[in-house]
Amino acid sequence: MAQPSGILIKGGKVVNEDCSVFADVYIENGKIVEVGRNLQIPAGVRVIDASGKLVIPGGIDTHTHMELAFMGTKAVDDFHIGTKAALAGGTTMILDFVIPQKGKSLLEAYDCWRRTADPKVCCDYSLHVAVTWWSDEVKKEMETLTKEKGVNSFKMFMAYKDVFMLHDSELYAAFSQCKEVGAIAQVHAENGDLIAEGAKKMLSMGITGPEGHELCRPEEVEAEATQRAITIAHSVNCPLYVVHVMSKSAAKVVSNARRDGRVVFGEPIAAGLGTDGTHYWNKEWAHAASFVMGPPLRPDPSTPAYLMDLLANDDLSVTGTDNCTFSLCQKALGKDDFTKIPNGVNGVEDRMSVIWEKGVHSGKMDENRFVAVTSSNAAKIFNFYPQKGRIAKNSDADVVIWDPKLTRRISAKTHHQAVDYNIFEGMECHGVPVITISRGKVVYEDGRLNVTQGHGRFIHRNPFSDFVYKRIRQRDQVGLRPEGSKSVYFRGHIQSSMIPNRSDQ
Amino acid sequence: MAQPSGILIKGGKVVNEDCSVFADVYIENGKIVEVGRNLQIPAGVRVIDASGKLVIPGGIDTHTHMELAFMGTKAVDDFHIGTKAALAGGTTMILDFVIPQKGKSLLEAYDCWRRTADPKVCCDYSLHVAVTWWSDEVKKEMETLTKEKGVNSFKMFMAYKDVFMLHDSELYAAFSQCKEVGAIAQVHAENGDLIAEGAKKMLSMGITGPEGHELCRPEEVEAEATQRAITIAHSVNCPLYVVHVMSKSAAKVVSNARRDGRVVFGEPIAAGLGTDGTHYWNKEWAHAASFVMGPPLRPDPSTPAYLMDLLANDDLSVTGTDNCTFSLCQKALGKDDFTKIPNGVNGVEDRMSVIWEKGVHSGKMDENRFVAVTSSNAAKIFNFYPQKGRIAKNSDADVVIWDPKLTRRISAKTHHQAVDYNIFEGMECHGVPVITISRGKVVYEDGRLNVTQGHGRFIHRNPFSDFVYKRIRQRDQVGLRPEGSKSVYFRGHIQSSMIPNRSDQ
Amino acid sequence: MAQPSGILIKGGKVVNEDCSVFADVYIENGKIVEVGRNLQIPAGVRVIDASGKLVIPGGIDTHTHMELAFMGTKAVDDFHIGTKAALAGGTTMILDFVIPQKGKSLLEAYDCWRRTADPKVCCDYSLHVAVTWWSDEVKKEMETLTKEKGVNSFKMFMAYKDVFMLHDSELYAAFSQCKEVGAIAQVHAENGDLIAEGAKKMLSMGITGPEGHELCRPEEVEAEATQRAITIAHSVNCPLYVVHVMSKSAAKVVSNARRDGRVVFGEPIAAGLGTDGTHYWNKEWAHAASFVMGPPLRPDPSTPAYLMDLLANDDLSVTGTDNCTFSLCQKALGKDDFTKIPNGVNGVEDRMSVIWEKGVHSGKMDENRFVAVTSSNAAKIFNFYPQKGRIAKNSDADVVIWDPKLTRRISAKTHHQAVDYNIFEGMECHGVPVITISRGKVVYEDGRLNVTQGHGRFIHRNPFSDFVYKRIRQRDQVGLRPEGSKSVYFRGHIQSSMIPNRSDQ
Amino acid sequence: MAQPSGILIKGGKVVNEDCSVFADVYIENGKIVEVGRNLQIPAGVRVIDASGKLVIPGGIDTHTHMELAFMGTKAVDDFHIGTKAALAGGTTMILDFVIPQKGKSLLEAYDCWRRTADPKVCCDYSLHVAVTWWSDEVKKEMETLTKEKGVNSFKMFMAYKDVFMLHDSELYAAFSQCKEVGAIAQVHAENGDLIAEGAKKMLSMGITGPEGHELCRPEEVEAEATQRAITIAHSVNCPLYVVHVMSKSAAKVVSNARRDGRVVFGEPIAAGLGTDGTHYWNKEWAHAASFVMGPPLRPDPSTPAYLMDLLANDDLSVTGTDNCTFSLCQKALGKDDFTKIPNGVNGVEDRMSVIWEKGVHSGKMDENRFVAVTSSNAAKIFNFYPQKGRIAKNSDADVVIWDPKLTRRISAKTHHQAVDYNIFEGMECHGVPVITISRGKVVYEDGRLNVTQGHGRFIHRNPFSDFVYKRIRQRDQVGLRPEGSKSVYFRGHIQSSMIPNRSDQ
Repeated sequence: MAQPSGILIKGGKVVNEDCSVFADVYIENGKIVEVGRNLQIPAGVRVIDASGKLVIPGGIDTHTHMELAFMGTKAVDDFHIGTKAALAGGTTMILDFVIPQKGKSLLEAYDCWRRTADPKVCCDYSLHVAVTWWSDEVKKEMETLTKEKGVNSFKMFMAYKDVFMLHDSELYAAFSQCKEVGAIAQVHAENGDLIAEGAKKMLSMGITGPEGHELCRPEEVEAEATQRAITIAHSVNCPLYVVHVMSKSAAKVVSNARRDGRVVFGEPIAAGLGTDGTHYWNKEWAHAASFVMGPPLRPDPSTPAYLMDLLANDDLSVTGTDNCTFSLCQKALGKDDFTKIPNGVNGVEDRMSVIWEKGVHSGKMDENRFVAVTSSNAAKIFNFYPQKGRIAKNSDADVVIWDPKLTRRISAKTHHQAVDYNIFEGMECHGVPVITISRGKVVYEDGRLNVTQGHGRFIHRNPFSDFVYKRIRQRDQVGLRPEGSKSVYFRGHIQSSMIPNRSDQ
Repeated sequence: MAQPSGILIKGGKVVNEDCSVFADVYIENGKIVEVGRNLQIPAGVRVIDASGKLVIPGGIDTHTHMELAFMGTKAVDDFHIGTKAALAGGTTMILDFVIPQKGKSLLEAYDCWRRTADPKVCCDYSLHVAVTWWSDEVKKEMETLTKEKGVNSFKMFMAYKDVFMLHDSELYAAFSQCKEVGAIAQVHAENGDLIAEGAKKMLSMGITGPEGHELCRPEEVEAEATQRAITIAHSVNCPLYVVHVMSKSAAKVVSNARRDGRVVFGEPIAAGLGTDGTHYWNKEWAHAASFVMGPPLRPDPSTPAYLMDLLANDDLSVTGTDNCTFSLCQKALGKDDFTKIPNGVNGVEDRMSVIWEKGVHSGKMDENRFVAVTSSNAAKIFNFYPQKGRIAKNSDADVVIWDPKLTRRISAKTHHQAVDYNIFEGMECHGVPVITISRGKVVYEDGRLNVTQGHGRFIHRNPFSDFVYKRIRQRDQVGLRPEGSKSVYFRGHIQSSMIPNRSDQ
Repeated sequence: MAQPSGILIKGGKVVNEDCSVFADVYIENGKIVEVGRNLQIPAGVRVIDASGKLVIPGGIDTHTHMELAFMGTKAVDDFHIGTKAALAGGTTMILDFVIPQKGKSLLEAYDCWRRTADPKVCCDYSLHVAVTWWSDEVKKEMETLTKEKGVNSFKMFMAYKDVFMLHDSELYAAFSQCKEVGAIAQVHAENGDLIAEGAKKMLSMGITGPEGHELCRPEEVEAEATQRAITIAHSVNCPLYVVHVMSKSAAKVVSNARRDGRVVFGEPIAAGLGTDGTHYWNKEWAHAASFVMGPPLRPDPSTPAYLMDLLANDDLSVTGTDNCTFSLCQKALGKDDFTKIPNGVNGVEDRMSVIWEKGVHSGKMDENRFVAVTSSNAAKIFNFYPQKGRIAKNSDADVVIWDPKLTRRISAKTHHQAVDYNIFEGMECHGVPVITISRGKVVYEDGRLNVTQGHGRFIHRNPFSDFVYKRIRQRDQVGLRPEGSKSVYFRGHIQSSMIPNRSDQ
Repeated sequence: MAQPSGILIKGGKVVNEDCSVFADVYIENGKIVEVGRNLQIPAGVRVIDASGKLVIPGGIDTHTHMELAFMGTKAVDDFHIGTKAALAGGTTMILDFVIPQKGKSLLEAYDCWRRTADPKVCCDYSLHVAVTWWSDEVKKEMETLTKEKGVNSFKMFMAYKDVFMLHDSELYAAFSQCKEVGAIAQVHAENGDLIAEGAKKMLSMGITGPEGHELCRPEEVEAEATQRAITIAHSVNCPLYVVHVMSKSAAKVVSNARRDGRVVFGEPIAAGLGTDGTHYWNKEWAHAASFVMGPPLRPDPSTPAYLMDLLANDDLSVTGTDNCTFSLCQKALGKDDFTKIPNGVNGVEDRMSVIWEKGVHSGKMDENRFVAVTSSNAAKIFNFYPQKGRIAKNSDADVVIWDPKLTRRISAKTHHQAVDYNIFEGMECHGVPVITISRGKVVYEDGRLNVTQGHGRFIHRNPFSDFVYKRIRQRDQVGLRPEGSKSVYFRGHIQSSMIPNRSDQ
């Protein structure tokens, strides 16, 4: 006889972004059926005792690159291993990036990613699509992807000159199209021209080691591009999402823009919140190289705490990992030239623990904000809330039992990822996921994974996310130059209120 | 036969702070019993058609002074009229201030306020208590009030020298006691010494009109005190709530402190969000005088939009009104000397509409953020969430049906308050409360109030609000000097992690 | 018999940027021969009584476009009339811009400008050269211009797409060459792509009036480009000079960069300091059009005072005018399309008075700072200090007798410029130049000009201005990543101090 | 026969704050007689070859406490040794503080200081006077001191509760009197109440070591008081001088105030520019204790570079040392209780070298700015410019020959101060004073001092320093509420321009 699919989580403290309550959670058929006390439960269902523990929405990693072919090699964590590692860490959904080659079809790339991922993923996932070049064809494909393929977010690169980078006028066009189709524009914000020049300069000076990677793209290169992207997006009243905010100055740009009313979201990542760029000067090349990613981690050691403060304060919104793992062998491709070190670090497994440790245990945020930044906000921005991101009736049963009193020590020796190092090696984390439930099934428990490839599903996302677009649309409608604000939104007919009266001065 | 108490609100869009969903709401016995589609409802209950309308949590006004005796006279809106006006505007709860005379018992003042308010209030209410002097007696009474009387917030004045003002060392003591008993410290932040000197100077220069009120206490006087209060509160790791943030510079101080991780909340008020201090130069004395309040509205006309941007962005948290209304006759007490104009403006009735108009209609915030800043956040901070502040099963049935397409024009001629002017006179507001339900009863409908004195109840609030104290307690526990942060929290034993290693440099 | 060339200015208060002293000034042969009390003076020289007046260095206008051919027409103030008007206003030197067409030789353009100006100028002048395209030829010509032609400043446009605009990689190259040859890089900082798109949008919406000019290039378009230029310049350790800083946000970018140690100078102009962009909404088209310039004046009326505060505080450094005057007839070219309104305003005559009025009379700066920002700093930055910019022995006898007690009212009816309106029309100015001495000759007195074409001389400027390059060179030499600073300077060999030790973390 | 008093300094580069020129300097009778090339010099005068070296105005240390009786002991550097050490380091004038006991006469304290210092000083000096209590008597004495005693600066303490600290209303009164008599108000800006509470807390927690000194007065305590002092000073339109700006946050407060047009000057000191507060955690108690001063050095290691950036940028104005040296034996008074460690560090000898090293050698400022911040600005603010602070005809012959190519290593073993440690121990400094001339006499040369007690003179300073008061007076006169500015200045009659028109809104 089939095991009854129901699960009752009993005695835990259910943590949502708005508050925590002591309540039981009953799960059936992949959904949360009821949350409350004294639930009427069918006999024979599994009961999980969560006393003294937190019951939280499964983590959502907004930024991964599983098995990405990049810089002449391929990330070692594929959709199978990568998503299993995610589950072990309390993450039950990832958003990966489709990255078409310049000149190639976005739709075909999307299809290719789906074909690869669908049979492998152990947790639910969805796909952002990168716009790496511009044409009418691309524009049309963006529409198709949002209307038919469940994509509502497109990433544009301001770095990787001649490879992925778009110029300002192309960004303008791409943002305009995002706005048109109801997608959120994402940017990798670094000035690609300056990086290219900087890299040349470093190499010409004989700096070939991993420190050159950071030296050729200091944080102002990131801050500049962030400011530029925000300005362009604002000029078309398009919502913007800045992926991997890595520096204090870039984070400040995002925060200030939000204060000015811009619809912009900043995504710090586990690496940036948990470690820093002093490692690029580590004596051991391999150690240093393992931290190489773009934008780089920053040598200013106060950066992670600063980013966490802003994340706690909702100046930054949501967290990913940019998980894109290359083994030390692969990193060695850049042994004599830092520009050839494959860019990427781990994170998908440890993100939840790192943020708990540096954010919650440190007293910077509470458990509710933790849920917001690891799960709910991602679901809101990318338009699948409250399907995910909340422990509530009718939501997906992606649930984690979190023990805030347990501790674990992060290590490549024990992690579930394929990569042979861990940038958080040795970090002691208070707060451990003890059970992970994905789609209503216990997939991780007692340190053991119990899940098969293809267990996860692709999550189709609709355009015009309320959380992102409500203000955008209203601004279009009133066509306002908001009182006291610095600029102007337009669309359709001009409102008389829009323009100061032409009166004698 | 008794009318069945049940009410079904059908077809509306239920708006909570995290998202909006189309759902019906069933109410019985003063509580929300169910939220969802296709509810099973007893026959005979009243059905309200909310199609095309929003169903929102009733507004909570965090800051009122009903029938306050102040400056030789008494506010004309008493607990009866004031709370009726609140209901007409979509507000279903107020938090009023007990203000004992210097040297008088806090408990006795509290009792006096209860005796006055309980029989009159038409909606639920609660009480903050002001600490206007300092002694061991006061300290003890604060404990009693939190443990036995349902008070978890105390206001300290930094202005009103020789009347209510506390000195820095007294603030330190009062904040320490707040921390001890689990209350949130509130401050009226203006430098009382400078106001006293400024007022003398204005009068000596022959400036006696309402403009003198603003000229003697420019906004830097507010910003300075705000910074000072935050610094003192932080030194005892006590949460702080700044009442009536009136200026750009004070708001910036609050915002920056939040970025630095301070547990501080800023409360703009309807007056500051909806109008400005240019009125103090109005030719008509009565017009100008009607805007007199402390701190004053600011002559910089970009102030309201600036405050609204910060409110939208969660740099400011919650909204009140400082409703404290004196008739023009009463205002005339200061006809020849602005220091004698009774301080106070209206707001309790119009707050919701003003914020909708300037915040939501303008595109600065969406309907969900509107609910957060008019209701949910107040409930969280003052510790009665989700009893109030959310449309959810088991919450109190304080509900408003809001029509975002209707408009109304604010006027003293039509408002329900006792006062004979309205500082928002003539403002056209999109967004109108069409039905207000308090404690499960329709009390306002079709422009008519249907409620009797004493319908409301005192809401007992417990100390150590999770929303406020979770981080505070964690910081005490880890005793950390957070990495990258500027200062240090202490309590109990010192943690080794607290202090940088004493190592050779 | 020839009039003795000597002039003794007696009894005045000599104002230099560092202090004011009561002293006489003796002039001979175009030079200041002595400054002091009780000077031994040859008999028969003219004695000017300056009692109660200030004796200040003649003004230097850093930014003019005399008789510029632009947008299909030609500025009406030519080098003759324009420089005469300058003298009448107390300005004794201008720096004009050579602007070659895209693809054309810089040297030829320079020669053309010299041929035009040399015979006409009534006061001394010098030339900046614009780099409007990029090639090896251009690069070489920049070197020739600095080595042989007396040019040490090159302007690059980030606006005027397809006409003058350079892309980021071209900016990088041009800045690099400036650094190489010891010139200061100047930028017109506005995002040309966004302006082009914005203009299209305005026209498509039917906005064709002068207000469209501002609406299509709001201030964030200026701030963005300013930030970008500073970032690029810093990446090559090249000094930067931002011409016409017009907005609060751009000025803030410059100020913040200076705080971070960037070698960057901001130039507000008379128009931006004396009036604002609300005029673009003036009912009368001609009135509105007369204010059209790029970047536009800003509608925020607090802009001029803000810029003046920063100028007073040395966050901004120096003042010009962007004097480029088109008559109302010429402005009418854009009657039906704001993009065709010739860009430019007056200022060369009134700059000194406007800055005195808004800066000194208002109490924002003192007379010494006035001298710094109208004269000395220009001379320092562009490397002809103390030849000009100071009342001192051996300096050029470009001297103005300034009466701080007189007032005058600015009007097109009385000004000396050729243009038929004045953007400062009606402004009452305390502080009037009563005598102007250029090259040792009284050229303006009692409201009358007494000067002939060609009186002025071209001022040859050497590269590597100390004021600008001392820090630049030192940074190159120590190759430092300054402690606590965000980025890194490089050149030549790497210093061990440059890079954090590669030590184990 | 008497040695001719004349000295010719030949072949050097004369560095003033505005520019550097190659010129000879001729000195006679304690004055600079001529600066220029090919000077006509009497035979027999001493000629100093300054080729390859800089000729700079002697340093002015704005802040010393020679032989101060403090915390139960007395500073070991007296006016004799202290001023000799100053000369050895290139400083030719100090400004010391008269600090009367609470309740004691300012005039008597002043006389006492004069009696002590006059016969001992080896260089010129002047005196600030501290206002440590308030009464009509004090007010009158302030007037006497400015009118008759050559004092134009008064320091008020916001720290040292119950000892020196003034309350806000006393600060207001003292600032008002400073304004009245034309003095500049100085403040020691730290919140004394918070320090007192903090110290109690630290001791109660068992923290008794030097780290407790910093922990009990974190930088926000300094920033808060700085903001408060600026606000109070502005309310009376009194110029303000913040002594020893020690932290990034306090420096930012000063910088921002200056941007807003406040007449405020910030004084960083050698200790804060050259080292940091991590030393308080040094394992060796004596090492840690030697850095104890108030306000403390900051543990954030990026502080010194930040302060230097602001000093380079004129956000901070001038440098002192707070030289107040206690031997390690004296420091040991606080062995078991950090509150008993005598507060004070060295600096008077090394200030010039430390600022050259960290400021000029690092590329943050050039040699001219170095002169401004070590000498000229002090002379301007305290009203003896250009008597001192400039190499110019008629100025005092306080001159230093500076060799920018030499290096020296700072050490207690070789310094000339009496104290037995040096907080800059081991710092290598590029830039060494090779000859010091005081009052026209070579007093230091080849590492040897040649000066006798009483060589120096008291410098009488007049009130109403132009540099400080010109703007102040103008603001009083126009009585303006400056356009776009946040507040209002008053005095005498109100100007119609002061107040916005009372017009209908």
